[in-house]
Amino acid sequence: MKLLEQAIREKGTVLPNDVLKVNSFLNHQIDTELMIAIGKEFAHLFAQEGITKVLTIESSGIAPSFMAANELKSPLIFARKKKSLTLQDNVYTSSVYSYTKKETNEITVAKEFLNCNDTVLIIDDFLANGEAALGLASIVEQAGATVVGIGIVIEKSFQPGRNKLLQAGYRVESLARIESLSNGTVTFVTKNHLEEVQHENENCSLSVV
Amino acid sequence: MKLLEQAIREKGTVLPNDVLKVNSFLNHQIDTELMIAIGKEFAHLFAQEGITKVLTIESSGIAPSFMAANELKSPLIFARKKKSLTLQDNVYTSSVYSYTKKETNEITVAKEFLNCNDTVLIIDDFLANGEAALGLASIVEQAGATVVGIGIVIEKSFQPGRNKLLQAGYRVESLARIESLSNGTVTFVTKNHLEEVQHENENCSLSVV
Repeated sequence: MKLLEQAIREKGTVLPNDVLKVNSFLNHQIDTELMIAIGKEFAHLFAQEGITKVLTIESSGIAPSFMAANELKSPLIFARKKKSLTLQDNVYTSSVYSYTKKETNEITVAKEFLNCNDTVLIIDDFLANGEAALGLASIVEQAGATVVGIGIVIEKSFQPGRNKLLQAGYRVESLARIESLSNGTVTFVTKNHLEEVQHENENCSLSVV
Repeated sequence: MKLLEQAIREKGTVLPNDVLKVNSFLNHQIDTELMIAIGKEFAHLFAQEGITKVLTIESSGIAPSFMAANELKSPLIFARKKKSLTLQDNVYTSSVYSYTKKETNEITVAKEFLNCNDTVLIIDDFLANGEAALGLASIVEQAGATVVGIGIVIEKSFQPGRNKLLQAGYRVESLARIESLSNGTVTFVTKNHLEEVQHENENCSLSVV
Protein backbone atom coordinates (compact mmCIF):
# COMPACT_ATOMS: atom_id res chain seq x y z
CA MET A 1 0.00 0.00 0.00
CA LYS A 2 1.80 3.06 -1.31
CA LEU A 3 0.43 5.65 1.12
CA LEU A 4 1.51 3.51 4.06
CA GLU A 5 4.99 2.80 2.64
CA GLN A 6 5.41 6.53 2.08
CA ALA A 7 4.44 7.28 5.70
CA ILE A 8 6.90 4.63 6.95
CA ARG A 9 9.71 6.06 4.80
CA GLU A 10 9.03 9.68 5.69
CA LYS A 11 7.95 9.43 9.33
CA GLY A 12 9.25 6.10 10.62
CA THR A 13 12.48 5.85 12.61
CA VAL A 14 14.65 2.76 12.69
CA LEU A 15 16.01 2.08 16.18
CA PRO A 16 18.56 -0.54 17.24
CA ASN A 17 17.49 -4.21 17.39
CA ASP A 18 15.23 -3.92 14.35
CA VAL A 19 12.70 -1.72 16.11
CA LEU A 20 10.70 0.48 13.73
CA LYS A 21 9.21 3.45 15.55
CA VAL A 22 5.99 4.67 13.94
CA ASN A 23 4.77 6.67 16.92
CA SER A 24 4.01 9.70 14.78
CA PHE A 25 1.18 8.14 12.76
CA LEU A 26 0.24 4.68 14.07
CA ASN A 27 0.80 3.84 17.70
CA HIS A 28 0.93 7.01 19.76
CA GLN A 29 -0.03 9.90 17.52
CA ILE A 30 -2.53 8.69 14.90
CA ASP A 31 -2.98 9.91 11.34
CA THR A 32 -6.72 9.22 11.06
CA GLU A 33 -6.83 9.83 7.28
CA LEU A 34 -4.20 7.13 6.78
CA MET A 35 -5.95 4.80 9.26
CA ILE A 36 -9.22 5.21 7.34
CA ALA A 37 -7.45 4.30 4.09
CA ILE A 38 -5.87 1.27 5.81
CA GLY A 39 -9.21 0.16 7.25
CA LYS A 40 -10.89 0.43 3.86
CA GLU A 41 -8.10 -1.59 2.25
CA PHE A 42 -8.56 -4.42 4.77
CA ALA A 43 -12.32 -4.31 4.17
CA HIS A 44 -11.73 -4.50 0.42
CA LEU A 45 -9.35 -7.47 0.74
CA PHE A 46 -11.79 -9.47 2.87
CA ALA A 47 -15.06 -8.17 1.40
CA GLN A 48 -16.19 -11.58 0.10
CA GLU A 49 -15.62 -13.52 3.31
CA GLY A 50 -18.91 -12.95 5.11
CA ILE A 51 -17.17 -11.47 8.12
CA THR A 52 -19.31 -11.05 11.25
CA LYS A 53 -16.66 -9.74 13.69
CA VAL A 54 -13.35 -7.91 13.43
CA LEU A 55 -10.98 -8.75 16.29
CA THR A 56 -7.92 -6.72 17.26
CA ILE A 57 -5.86 -6.11 20.42
CA GLU A 58 -5.50 -2.98 22.49
CA SER A 59 -4.25 -0.34 21.97
CA SER A 60 -2.49 0.09 18.65
CA GLY A 61 -4.78 -2.25 16.75
CA ILE A 62 -7.89 -0.15 17.36
CA ALA A 63 -7.25 2.75 14.96
CA PRO A 64 -6.28 0.71 11.85
CA SER A 65 -9.15 -1.77 12.34
CA PHE A 66 -11.85 0.80 13.15
CA MET A 67 -12.85 1.62 9.58
CA ALA A 68 -12.38 -1.98 8.42
CA ALA A 69 -15.08 -3.05 10.88
CA ASN A 70 -17.26 -0.12 9.87
CA GLU A 71 -17.00 -0.90 6.14
CA LEU A 72 -17.64 -4.60 6.77
CA LYS A 73 -20.65 -3.65 8.93
CA SER A 74 -19.25 -5.79 11.75
CA PRO A 75 -18.65 -4.95 15.37
CA LEU A 76 -15.00 -4.40 16.32
CA ILE A 77 -13.77 -6.28 19.37
CA PHE A 78 -10.48 -5.39 20.98
CA ALA A 79 -8.89 -8.04 23.16
CA ARG A 80 -7.81 -6.73 26.54
CA LYS A 81 -4.25 -7.26 27.69
CA LYS A 82 -5.18 -7.99 31.28
CA LYS A 83 -8.38 -8.62 33.11
CA SER A 84 -10.20 -5.56 34.36
CA LEU A 85 -12.64 -5.44 37.26
CA THR A 86 -15.62 -5.32 34.92
CA LEU A 87 -14.37 -8.23 32.79
CA GLN A 88 -13.44 -10.98 35.21
CA ASP A 89 -15.54 -14.01 34.38
CA ASN A 90 -16.55 -15.78 31.24
CA VAL A 91 -13.59 -14.80 29.11
CA TYR A 92 -11.54 -16.60 26.50
CA THR A 93 -7.89 -16.13 27.29
CA SER A 94 -4.47 -16.66 25.72
CA SER A 95 -0.89 -15.85 26.78
CA VAL A 96 1.05 -13.60 24.42
CA TYR A 97 4.75 -12.85 24.75
CA SER A 98 5.90 -9.48 23.42
CA TYR A 99 9.52 -9.55 22.23
CA THR A 100 9.48 -5.73 22.02
CA LYS A 101 8.24 -5.20 25.56
CA LYS A 102 9.84 -8.37 26.95
CA GLU A 103 6.73 -9.33 28.87
CA THR A 104 3.89 -11.82 28.72
CA ASN A 105 0.34 -10.54 28.68
CA GLU A 106 -2.79 -12.48 29.31
CA ILE A 107 -5.15 -11.39 26.54
CA THR A 108 -8.88 -11.84 27.04
CA VAL A 109 -12.15 -11.55 25.13
CA ALA A 110 -15.53 -11.83 26.84
CA LYS A 111 -17.28 -15.02 25.76
CA GLU A 112 -20.52 -13.17 25.02
CA PHE A 113 -18.97 -11.45 21.98
CA LEU A 114 -17.73 -14.50 20.03
CA ASN A 115 -19.56 -17.71 19.22
CA CYS A 116 -19.39 -20.66 16.85
CA ASN A 117 -21.39 -18.83 14.16
CA ASP A 118 -18.82 -16.03 13.87
CA THR A 119 -16.54 -15.50 10.89
CA VAL A 120 -13.68 -13.39 12.14
CA LEU A 121 -11.09 -11.08 10.58
CA ILE A 122 -8.10 -10.50 12.88
CA ILE A 123 -6.24 -7.20 12.48
CA ASP A 124 -3.05 -6.04 14.20
CA ASP A 125 -0.57 -3.21 13.74
CA PHE A 126 2.65 -5.26 13.55
CA LEU A 127 3.60 -8.80 12.60
CA ALA A 128 7.05 -9.91 13.74
CA ASN A 129 7.08 -13.20 15.65
CA GLY A 130 3.37 -13.83 15.26
CA GLU A 131 2.67 -14.17 18.97
CA ALA A 132 -0.19 -11.67 19.15
CA ALA A 133 -1.90 -12.93 15.98
CA LEU A 134 -1.65 -16.55 17.13
CA GLY A 135 -3.04 -15.57 20.53
CA LEU A 136 -5.99 -13.84 18.88
CA ALA A 137 -6.56 -16.82 16.57
CA SER A 138 -6.51 -19.14 19.59
CA ILE A 139 -9.26 -17.05 21.20
CA VAL A 140 -11.40 -17.23 18.03
CA GLU A 141 -10.94 -20.99 17.94
CA GLN A 142 -11.75 -21.40 21.62
CA ALA A 143 -15.10 -19.82 20.70
CA GLY A 144 -15.58 -22.37 17.92
CA ALA A 145 -15.58 -19.48 15.44
CA THR A 146 -13.70 -19.31 12.13
CA VAL A 147 -10.63 -17.17 11.37
CA VAL A 148 -10.94 -16.09 7.74
CA GLY A 149 -7.74 -14.13 7.68
CA ILE A 150 -5.24 -11.92 9.42
CA GLY A 151 -4.74 -8.32 8.30
CA ILE A 152 -1.46 -6.71 9.30
CA VAL A 153 -0.47 -3.06 8.91
CA ILE A 154 3.32 -3.53 9.00
CA GLU A 155 4.99 -6.91 8.56
CA LYS A 156 8.63 -7.49 9.42
CA SER A 157 9.12 -10.07 6.71
CA PHE A 158 12.61 -10.93 7.99
CA GLN A 159 11.10 -12.33 11.17
CA PRO A 160 9.25 -15.65 11.44
CA GLY A 161 5.68 -14.46 12.12
CA ARG A 162 4.31 -14.63 8.58
CA ASN A 163 5.52 -18.17 8.01
CA LYS A 164 4.17 -19.32 11.35
CA LEU A 165 0.72 -17.99 10.44
CA LEU A 166 0.80 -19.47 6.93
CA GLN A 167 1.92 -22.81 8.32
CA ALA A 168 -1.01 -22.72 10.71
CA GLY A 169 -3.22 -22.35 7.62
CA TYR A 170 -4.23 -18.68 7.92
CA ARG A 171 -4.54 -16.22 5.05
CA VAL A 172 -2.25 -13.25 5.81
CA GLU A 173 -2.64 -9.83 4.17
CA SER A 174 0.04 -7.29 5.15
CA LEU A 175 -0.26 -3.75 3.80
CA ALA A 176 3.48 -3.04 4.12
CA ARG A 177 6.11 -5.75 4.09
CA ILE A 178 9.58 -4.86 5.33
CA GLU A 179 12.46 -6.93 4.04
CA SER A 180 15.12 -5.30 6.17
CA LEU A 181 15.82 -2.54 8.68
CA SER A 182 19.61 -2.95 8.36
CA ASN A 183 21.82 0.11 8.62
CA GLY A 184 18.92 2.20 9.83
CA THR A 185 17.19 1.96 6.44
CA VAL A 186 13.75 0.61 5.64
CA THR A 187 13.77 -1.75 2.65
CA PHE A 188 10.39 -3.05 1.50
CA VAL A 189 9.83 -6.47 -0.03
CA THR A 190 9.88 -5.90 -3.79
CA LYS A 191 7.67 -7.71 -6.28
CA ASN A 192 10.35 -10.23 -7.25
CA HIS A 193 11.22 -10.92 -3.66
CA LEU A 194 7.54 -11.13 -2.92
CA GLU A 195 7.09 -13.91 -5.45
CA GLU A 196 10.04 -15.79 -3.99
CA VAL A 197 8.65 -15.40 -0.50
CA GLN A 198 5.20 -16.47 -1.66
CA HIS A 199 6.68 -19.51 -3.38
CA GLU A 200 8.56 -20.35 -0.22
CA ASN A 201 5.36 -19.91 1.75
CA GLU A 202 3.43 -22.14 -0.62
CA ASN A 203 5.98 -24.81 0.08
CA CYS A 204 5.52 -24.23 3.79
CA SER A 205 1.76 -24.59 3.44
CA LEU A 206 2.16 -27.72 1.34
CA SER A 207 4.51 -29.27 3.84
CA VAL A 208 1.83 -28.76 6.48
CA VAL A 209 -0.87 -30.33 4.30
CA MET B 1 -27.18 12.62 22.60
CA LYS B 2 -30.22 10.43 21.97
CA LEU B 3 -28.49 7.60 20.07
CA LEU B 4 -25.99 7.19 22.88
CA GLU B 5 -28.61 7.29 25.64
CA GLN B 6 -30.56 4.65 23.74
CA ALA B 7 -27.48 2.40 23.52
CA ILE B 8 -26.83 2.84 27.26
CA ARG B 9 -30.45 1.99 28.11
CA GLU B 10 -30.65 -0.98 25.77
CA LYS B 11 -27.16 -2.46 26.01
CA GLY B 12 -25.63 -1.13 29.24
CA THR B 13 -25.63 -3.18 32.44
CA VAL B 14 -25.58 -1.67 35.90
CA LEU B 15 -23.28 -3.57 38.25
CA PRO B 16 -22.83 -3.08 42.01
CA ASN B 17 -20.89 -0.04 43.25
CA ASP B 18 -22.25 2.23 40.53
CA VAL B 19 -20.33 0.48 37.75
CA LEU B 20 -21.95 0.86 34.33
CA LYS B 21 -20.81 -1.89 31.97
CA VAL B 22 -20.87 -0.77 28.33
CA ASN B 23 -18.60 -3.52 27.02
CA SER B 24 -20.96 -4.33 24.17
CA PHE B 25 -20.57 -1.04 22.30
CA LEU B 26 -17.86 1.16 23.83
CA ASN B 27 -14.99 -0.43 25.68
CA HIS B 28 -14.54 -4.02 24.57
CA GLN B 29 -16.82 -4.60 21.60
CA ILE B 30 -17.18 -1.35 19.63
CA ASP B 31 -20.20 -0.13 17.66
CA THR B 32 -18.27 1.86 15.04
CA GLU B 33 -21.42 3.56 13.63
CA LEU B 34 -22.20 4.95 17.07
CA MET B 35 -18.54 5.92 17.63
CA ILE B 36 -18.54 7.83 14.33
CA ALA B 37 -21.69 9.71 15.39
CA ILE B 38 -20.07 10.48 18.77
CA GLY B 39 -16.85 11.67 17.14
CA LYS B 40 -18.77 13.95 14.79
CA GLU B 41 -20.75 15.39 17.69
CA PHE B 42 -17.54 16.28 19.56
CA ALA B 43 -16.15 17.84 16.38
CA HIS B 44 -19.34 19.89 15.97
CA LEU B 45 -19.27 21.11 19.59
CA PHE B 46 -15.65 22.27 19.34
CA ALA B 47 -15.58 23.26 15.66
CA GLN B 48 -14.86 26.94 16.33
CA GLU B 49 -11.94 26.41 18.71
CA GLY B 50 -9.04 26.13 16.26
CA ILE B 51 -8.08 22.73 17.59
CA THR B 52 -4.68 21.41 16.48
CA LYS B 53 -4.56 18.12 18.48
CA VAL B 54 -7.07 15.75 19.99
CA LEU B 55 -5.75 13.96 23.07
CA THR B 56 -7.23 10.82 24.61
CA ILE B 57 -6.02 7.87 26.69
CA GLU B 58 -5.65 4.21 25.76
CA SER B 59 -7.60 2.10 25.14
CA SER B 60 -11.27 3.00 25.43
CA GLY B 61 -10.78 6.64 24.44
CA ILE B 62 -9.46 5.81 20.98
CA ALA B 63 -12.69 4.74 19.23
CA PRO B 64 -14.91 7.67 20.32
CA SER B 65 -12.20 10.27 19.59
CA PHE B 66 -11.10 8.82 16.23
CA MET B 67 -13.69 10.54 14.06
CA ALA B 68 -13.58 13.74 16.13
CA ALA B 69 -9.90 14.11 15.24
CA ASN B 70 -10.61 13.23 11.63
CA GLU B 71 -13.41 15.81 11.29
CA LEU B 72 -11.30 18.48 13.03
CA LYS B 73 -8.41 17.61 10.68
CA SER B 74 -6.14 17.15 13.70
CA PRO B 75 -3.89 14.27 14.66
CA LEU B 76 -5.19 12.07 17.47
CA ILE B 77 -2.76 11.34 20.29
CA PHE B 78 -3.45 8.62 22.80
CA ALA B 79 -1.63 8.85 26.11
CA ARG B 80 0.03 5.61 27.10
CA LYS B 81 -0.67 4.12 30.50
CA LYS B 82 2.88 2.99 31.11
CA LYS B 83 6.18 3.57 29.44
CA SER B 84 7.02 1.23 26.60
CA LEU B 85 10.50 0.36 25.35
CA THR B 86 10.10 2.60 22.31
CA LEU B 87 8.82 5.53 24.36
CA GLN B 88 11.21 5.96 27.25
CA ASP B 89 12.66 9.43 27.08
CA ASN B 90 11.31 12.86 26.51
CA VAL B 91 7.80 12.27 27.73
CA TYR B 92 5.32 14.37 29.67
CA THR B 93 3.94 12.30 32.48
CA SER B 94 1.15 12.37 35.05
CA SER B 95 -0.12 9.93 37.70
CA VAL B 96 -3.74 8.85 37.36
CA TYR B 97 -5.61 6.81 39.94
CA SER B 98 -8.42 4.63 38.62
CA TYR B 99 -11.18 4.05 41.20
CA THR B 100 -12.66 1.32 38.98
CA LYS B 101 -9.41 -0.61 38.63
CA LYS B 102 -8.02 0.42 42.02
CA GLU B 103 -4.58 1.17 40.61
CA THR B 104 -2.41 4.13 39.73
CA ASN B 105 -1.08 4.42 36.20
CA GLU B 106 1.67 6.64 34.99
CA ILE B 107 0.30 8.18 31.80
CA THR B 108 2.75 9.55 29.25
CA VAL B 109 2.80 11.52 26.01
CA ALA B 110 5.96 11.97 23.94
CA LYS B 111 7.11 15.60 24.06
CA GLU B 112 7.52 15.74 20.29
CA PHE B 113 3.74 15.60 19.76
CA LEU B 114 2.64 18.55 21.93
CA ASN B 115 4.05 22.07 22.08
CA CYS B 116 3.11 25.55 23.24
CA ASN B 117 1.37 26.37 19.96
CA ASP B 118 -1.13 23.54 20.32
CA THR B 119 -4.82 24.00 21.05
CA VAL B 120 -6.02 20.71 22.45
CA LEU B 121 -9.36 18.93 22.80
CA ILE B 122 -9.27 16.17 25.43
CA ILE B 123 -11.69 13.25 24.96
CA ASP B 124 -12.35 10.31 27.26
CA ASP B 125 -14.96 7.57 27.52
CA PHE B 126 -16.04 8.10 31.15
CA LEU B 127 -16.01 10.96 33.62
CA ALA B 128 -16.47 9.94 37.25
CA ASN B 129 -13.86 11.34 39.61
CA GLY B 130 -12.06 13.34 36.95
CA GLU B 131 -8.65 11.76 37.54
CA ALA B 132 -7.93 10.79 33.94
CA ALA B 133 -9.14 14.09 32.47
CA LEU B 134 -7.09 16.09 35.00
CA GLY B 135 -4.04 13.95 34.23
CA LEU B 136 -4.45 14.60 30.51
CA ALA B 137 -4.95 18.32 31.13
CA SER B 138 -1.79 18.37 33.24
CA ILE B 139 0.15 16.86 30.32
CA VAL B 140 -1.21 19.51 27.93
CA GLU B 141 -0.19 22.23 30.36
CA GLN B 142 3.26 20.76 30.91
CA ALA B 143 3.69 21.26 27.15
CA GLY B 144 2.63 24.90 27.46
CA ALA B 145 -0.33 24.11 25.20
CA THR B 146 -3.95 25.17 25.74
CA VAL B 147 -6.85 22.91 26.75
CA VAL B 148 -9.94 24.25 24.96
CA GLY B 149 -12.28 21.68 26.39
CA ILE B 150 -12.96 18.17 27.58
CA GLY B 151 -15.34 15.91 25.67
CA ILE B 152 -16.80 12.98 27.61
CA VAL B 153 -18.87 10.11 26.26
CA ILE B 154 -20.56 9.09 29.53
CA GLU B 155 -20.57 11.30 32.62
CA LYS B 156 -21.53 9.99 36.03
CA SER B 157 -23.02 13.27 37.15
CA PHE B 158 -23.47 11.97 40.71
CA GLN B 159 -19.71 11.78 41.13
CA PRO B 160 -17.41 14.78 41.61
CA GLY B 161 -15.48 14.74 38.31
CA ARG B 162 -17.51 17.33 36.40
CA ASN B 163 -17.35 19.90 39.18
CA LYS B 164 -13.61 19.37 39.63
CA LEU B 165 -13.06 20.08 35.93
CA LEU B 166 -15.34 23.12 35.92
CA GLN B 167 -13.66 24.48 39.02
CA ALA B 168 -10.32 24.10 37.28
CA GLY B 169 -11.74 26.31 34.51
CA TYR B 170 -12.29 23.73 31.77
CA ARG B 171 -15.25 23.58 29.39
CA VAL B 172 -16.86 20.13 29.74
CA GLU B 173 -19.15 18.61 27.10
CA SER B 174 -20.61 15.23 28.03
CA LEU B 175 -22.76 13.43 25.49
CA ALA B 176 -24.65 11.38 28.10
CA ARG B 177 -25.06 12.52 31.70
CA ILE B 178 -26.16 9.95 34.25
CA GLU B 179 -27.90 11.23 37.34
CA SER B 180 -28.15 7.88 39.08
CA LEU B 181 -27.49 4.16 38.75
CA SER B 182 -29.50 3.31 41.87
CA ASN B 183 -31.50 0.08 41.96
CA GLY B 184 -29.82 -1.14 38.81
CA THR B 185 -31.53 1.55 36.71
CA VAL B 186 -29.92 4.20 34.55
CA THR B 187 -31.47 7.64 35.09
CA PHE B 188 -30.20 10.45 32.88
CA VAL B 189 -29.94 14.06 33.95
CA THR B 190 -33.12 15.72 32.68
CA LYS B 191 -33.32 19.25 31.31
CA ASN B 192 -34.59 20.73 34.60
CA HIS B 193 -31.98 18.93 36.61
CA LEU B 194 -29.44 19.98 34.03
CA GLU B 195 -30.24 23.64 34.61
CA GLU B 196 -29.94 23.16 38.36
CA VAL B 197 -26.62 21.41 37.96
CA GLN B 198 -25.40 24.12 35.59
CA HIS B 199 -26.47 26.80 38.05
CA GLU B 200 -24.67 24.95 40.83
CA ASN B 201 -21.63 24.69 38.65
CA GLU B 202 -21.72 28.39 37.82
CA ASN B 203 -21.62 29.05 41.55
CA CYS B 204 -18.67 26.70 41.87
CA SER B 205 -16.86 28.55 39.11
CA LEU B 206 -17.67 31.91 40.68
CA SER B 207 -16.45 30.77 44.06
CA VAL B 208 -13.13 29.85 42.47
CA VAL B 209 -12.85 33.28 40.78
